[in-house]
Amino acid sequence: MASNYSTTPVTLQSVNPKVLKCEYAVRGEIVTLAQKLEQDLKQNPDSHPFDEIIYCNIGNPQSLGQQPITFFREVLALCDHPAILDRSETQGLFSADAIERAFQILDQIPGRATGAYSHSQGIKGLRETIAAGIAERDGFPADPNDIFLTDGASPAVHMMMQLLIRSEKDGILCPIPQYPLYSASIALHGGTLVPYYLDEATGWGLEISELKKQLETAKSNGVCVRALVVINPGNPTGQVLAEDNQREIVEFCKNEGLVLLADEVYQENIYVPDKQFHSFKKVSRSMGYGEKNISLVSFQSVSKGYYGECGKRGGYMEVTGLSPEIREQIYKVASVNLCSNISGQILASLVMNPPKVGDESYESYTGEKDGILSSLAKRAKTLEDALNSLEGITCNRAEGAMYLFPRIDLPHKAIKAAEAAKRAPDAFYAHRLLDATGVVVVPGSGFGQVPGTWHFRCTILPQEDKIPAIVSRLTEFHKKFMDEFRD
Amino acid sequence: MASNYSTTPVTLQSVNPKVLKCEYAVRGEIVTLAQKLEQDLKQNPDSHPFDEIIYCNIGNPQSLGQQPITFFREVLALCDHPAILDRSETQGLFSADAIERAFQILDQIPGRATGAYSHSQGIKGLRETIAAGIAERDGFPADPNDIFLTDGASPAVHMMMQLLIRSEKDGILCPIPQYPLYSASIALHGGTLVPYYLDEATGWGLEISELKKQLETAKSNGVCVRALVVINPGNPTGQVLAEDNQREIVEFCKNEGLVLLADEVYQENIYVPDKQFHSFKKVSRSMGYGEKNISLVSFQSVSKGYYGECGKRGGYMEVTGLSPEIREQIYKVASVNLCSNISGQILASLVMNPPKVGDESYESYTGEKDGILSSLAKRAKTLEDALNSLEGITCNRAEGAMYLFPRIDLPHKAIKAAEAAKRAPDAFYAHRLLDATGVVVVPGSGFGQVPGTWHFRCTILPQEDKIPAIVSRLTEFHKKFMDEFRD
Repeated sequence: MASNYSTTPVTLQSVNPKVLKCEYAVRGEIVTLAQKLEQDLKQNPDSHPFDEIIYCNIGNPQSLGQQPITFFREVLALCDHPAILDRSETQGLFSADAIERAFQILDQIPGRATGAYSHSQGIKGLRETIAAGIAERDGFPADPNDIFLTDGASPAVHMMMQLLIRSEKDGILCPIPQYPLYSASIALHGGTLVPYYLDEATGWGLEISELKKQLETAKSNGVCVRALVVINPGNPTGQVLAEDNQREIVEFCKNEGLVLLADEVYQENIYVPDKQFHSFKKVSRSMGYGEKNISLVSFQSVSKGYYGECGKRGGYMEVTGLSPEIREQIYKVASVNLCSNISGQILASLVMNPPKVGDESYESYTGEKDGILSSLAKRAKTLEDALNSLEGITCNRAEGAMYLFPRIDLPHKAIKAAEAAKRAPDAFYAHRLLDATGVVVVPGSGFGQVPGTWHFRCTILPQEDKIPAIVSRLTEFHKKFMDEFRD
Repeated sequence: MASNYSTTPVTLQSVNPKVLKCEYAVRGEIVTLAQKLEQDLKQNPDSHPFDEIIYCNIGNPQSLGQQPITFFREVLALCDHPAILDRSETQGLFSADAIERAFQILDQIPGRATGAYSHSQGIKGLRETIAAGIAERDGFPADPNDIFLTDGASPAVHMMMQLLIRSEKDGILCPIPQYPLYSASIALHGGTLVPYYLDEATGWGLEISELKKQLETAKSNGVCVRALVVINPGNPTGQVLAEDNQREIVEFCKNEGLVLLADEVYQENIYVPDKQFHSFKKVSRSMGYGEKNISLVSFQSVSKGYYGECGKRGGYMEVTGLSPEIREQIYKVASVNLCSNISGQILASLVMNPPKVGDESYESYTGEKDGILSSLAKRAKTLEDALNSLEGITCNRAEGAMYLFPRIDLPHKAIKAAEAAKRAPDAFYAHRLLDATGVVVVPGSGFGQVPGTWHFRCTILPQEDKIPAIVSRLTEFHKKFMDEFRD
């Protein structure tokens, strides 16, 4: 019997090259290494100069100790086991409005069957709730038939890429730096990522002149640009777009015939008083543009915000400005997978319709929500200040989202050492950081950056009581690193 | 302002042609029509000659009144809201072993965070439970690192198609009739479906000679065949493969260098005493073939079996006989979507490790399970007998799965009438059936069939008390139909 896999029918030479091309740095090599170190620590707590791995590589709040919103979990539990709804003990265990909400939701589900496949777009009643929530947020109507519920936002992004990309001659304008779901999805669907650079000097500003320039360059290379991806608040860059800027973006998409793919999953994550979230739907409607003028798909997720329910895989896209026959195609593709998971669907409806003034849970709900958001704001500021105090590091504000994306001015000697180690300089830095501190960050090269500049992405998610230790470990590491490599 | 979408950037001419090509009959035109009729009935109960729509188009047991397994739902509810685990009221509401199981599962989740993204393949401890369940089922070891938890089985099938298909020159051998997930997924990934016909005359027999013939034909057309799909128990055909036959299939894949894609989602749904489910893993291991000899991917789902938890979107694939570097590619693609939903993951572990003798829930669990399975067997037999009693209809046994796939010998006059109505003859019959009875079935053309033969797929899932009415409505309709069209 052969001791290797040489006779098996699938080899790297015979798999789909699009799969080979796809990269996803957020769970890339450095995370695999971190998991190995974590195993080491389990076997021998003294094996490394730190007690634990702190995963700052991914926006996964509950993995770092953030508690779920109680009301949401009460409703989910009751919908999972409706048999207890009428039991007296239940009233002692669950809040009255959670019980009431569970009844309402069950009434919206045909046969109260939370274990049945739903409509391919999601349960109609839940889509109505979500549409009402969007309308309340924006001050403009929303249509339940425009909502497609999905297992988190990622499958929704894939669906749109699948629809739009015919070949490598089709391009999608994406910010650089970008969240690598976009580059991965474009690679998997065989399209071309057309980059536009955010301006770090102006707080990751999005310049229309840059969009125009990149669009023209792509066109002159024979690429047909189909859509523009905008991530607002930004990932990994944390900036929040100004409304004026959003108007220009809408105008640009309208004039150039691009679908606007608006990643708005961080819409609840705003940390600075001078910025506010405005949905692209609201902005385009307030400009007088409707269904027939602008093609706009907005992505939302239950994984982010103050709720951070990543493991529930809930999310939706709101699809507007696409013709009925195109929406039929989207519906068909959604149907092939039958439906998204019902708990995620329910949670998406809760997130867009949380407890209101007068509800029994309102006070505890706002307490939990405000506690999480104000703590995130504090953590963002502390980490930002700490990073900015370090030699050769500059870090823009985290106005929103869950990340800092500091720039590191690496000494030539460090760059040479990285070359010798066959790593990109920022990956070299991130590996050294992990080895010394147990803190996992993602090298900027996984998101894209202006050539010759180096960054890393670090979440603001470790709990507040851990931040001082992280800051001191980071500071100590960085000083030693600079001492070792300073030119 | 234009009153149509002529200025929007996406048209049927400019979308991905693979999306246009994809079809999914199980939620196709006839279901859309049924939903319309259902709306009519809501507005006016007398609008049609029936009171309700009975959805026999899709294997969605709980939508037709099947109750979930209590133990499973108890554990899910407790994992959703662990805050109640220590409360005294909880002991009155939940069984002791459900509470214990919830604690066990939470202990397997880092930080007990059911709201966190898990490992991209799923929570390690749950994969260990699943692997142990597979080992117990098969009598051969299973490795937790071979398990990839997914949102139902469909995304797992897509992942494998994405990996294997490079272009239309790559082919996948699929049974005809087949479950249209396969044709849809192959179309979306731009490959070629290489059909092999099941032999209706021998109870949908799978002949190796037919596999060989179709493989040779494909090769001579320049198609590189990468994999063989086998659905066992069969969908839509309901047959259960004999072990000898499975051995031949394994041998064929091994000799021809094909990946065996084994759709085993109906492994718990067996209704006849003379047939048993054997996994392809067990069969290949019992032949002495291991990791290095045969590439085998087995798909399992929480949507089927006696549990029928379609809405939870849980499932997994067990990947064996692929090299570490290929598995790394699968891991990478799984990572792009971060993880499958945690409730679905938990449920997959429960399904592979249900209550055991001595557990508090054991008796109620087996009562519920046996009740569902024996009732399904009765319903299958009643419907099969009823169909076989009708003029021009012949129906093989439903040995397993959830469907009957009767053949209708349609009169020439009916075929002419279908032509005039611009419908396939079986679609014409299914539409007439829906209009007359409210019963939704899927035309055989959605699954593929020997040219010139006509079938439909009908689930065995309506509750037992509804079966007599369905039988009499079906019988009455069919008699009238034949009276109208008999040659």
